Amino acid sequence: MSTKPFLLISNDDGYQAKGINFLVETLRPVADIFVMAPDAPRSGAGCSITSAVPLTYRVVRSEPGLTVCACSGTPTDCVKLALGEVLDRRPDLVVGGINHGDNSSVNTHYSGTMGVASEGALQGFPAIAFSLCDHRADADFTPLRPYLVDLVMKAIAMGLPPFTCLNVNFPLRPRFEGLRVCRMARSRWTREFERRRKPGGGDYFWMTGECIELEPEAEDTDRWALAHGYVAVTPTTLDATATGLIDVLSGRL
Amino acid sequence: MSTKPFLLISNDDGYQAKGINFLVETLRPVADIFVMAPDAPRSGAGCSITSAVPLTYRVVRSEPGLTVCACSGTPTDCVKLALGEVLDRRPDLVVGGINHGDNSSVNTHYSGTMGVASEGALQGFPAIAFSLCDHRADADFTPLRPYLVDLVMKAIAMGLPPFTCLNVNFPLRPRFEGLRVCRMARSRWTREFERRRKPGGGDYFWMTGECIELEPEAEDTDRWALAHGYVAVTPTTLDATATGLIDVLSGRL
Repeated sequence: MSTKPFLLISNDDGYQAKGINFLVETLRPVADIFVMAPDAPRSGAGCSITSAVPLTYRVVRSEPGLTVCACSGTPTDCVKLALGEVLDRRPDLVVGGINHGDNSSVNTHYSGTMGVASEGALQGFPAIAFSLCDHRADADFTPLRPYLVDLVMKAIAMGLPPFTCLNVNFPLRPRFEGLRVCRMARSRWTREFERRRKPGGGDYFWMTGECIELEPEAEDTDRWALAHGYVAVTPTTLDATATGLIDVLSGRL
Repeated sequence: MSTKPFLLISNDDGYQAKGINFLVETLRPVADIFVMAPDAPRSGAGCSITSAVPLTYRVVRSEPGLTVCACSGTPTDCVKLALGEVLDRRPDLVVGGINHGDNSSVNTHYSGTMGVASEGALQGFPAIAFSLCDHRADADFTPLRPYLVDLVMKAIAMGLPPFTCLNVNFPLRPRFEGLRVCRMARSRWTREFERRRKPGGGDYFWMTGECIELEPEAEDTDRWALAHGYVAVTPTTLDATATGLIDVLSGRL
């Protein structure tokens, strides 16, 4: 049996996307890899799951140290199916990405790439998500290469506390200023739809929009780091309790 | 113009579900209501959004103080579309539910009902999600009635801090022991799939599973409250930063 670490990788752009294939090729020399990724793009899948219809998957690539499967479900489904029904070896790390597009700040909640890392953490594994702030299908991932290996190896060596994972976003630059550990910035999407007219009458709506920074001056956020050329590493918790509100509300409800 | 508070309501079970209609009829005497809900069930939608295809909606009911629209998208899409493109009045509260089924503990992350409240909070509105621990289509919501009005009115009167919302779960009981403000329990889904054989060969997988409590003795959790007959109110944050990890990681990455 291999002594290399074992990685479970998924994404939301689908198993054929450039980002996940770059990630696999970059990590292959240092890890055994199992990919269970959606069979087509599932951008914006968040932590969604599929319960109304059954799931299927098929093996699309099988080589020493690398298996790739394409699954009919969401990114979260992929992680659940791999861990629950397919793998007979416990991964040392669950990895999401590399996403084509920014998953910092509030995008965390919509991101299927973060859905992968979130599910890994919920299932008790160290987990990390990688995203590049470039949504183009042919985005250039080469500047990320040394960071990917380094962060994966460190995450495995350190481990992570239960119910936490790492959200790593790379700015669109040919080289990076270094790495910053950040908090999630507060931002808000606005003008989110482009309204068009149906040929037969009535409107339809394409999601689009722009993200407004609510605290652009704060230097400790992921958005600030990205805007200044740094790789943003945001430690993320799956415990969503607003702890500070418990006592406040207890006296008022 | 009406002086009643104005509520934007959505869910993940679809506009025809018993839960959302019970919620509307219960709150109608005290509020003006706009419903933008999925045109069919979207259970497990989480905070997912639709960007690959456009959205549409249609008005299915229009009466003084009540408009109901059915939307082709996810719960999160419904909130975005209503706030961004349809409403010309700012809601006093965004309400998700009433969900047919338990959205406590880790279910928070998969819940489309919580997707509604989360999106409301992300857009800067006070927001609350209601769920009953009974997934049956004909679940009896009548024991919830006084709590719904009381919690909605209190949430409007108090407001909520930015980036927070309330996750309210009701146990399956004819009457409740009262209300407890809780934290989100740590639990983990296991045995999540039922594997079946396709007629033509190969397997397919239905999502099912059971939820294992990781801290069943802790009396401050939502799961404990529900197990002991209380209405569980879990204040929930949309800031997912694992704050305690920032300094730890800064020295090690």
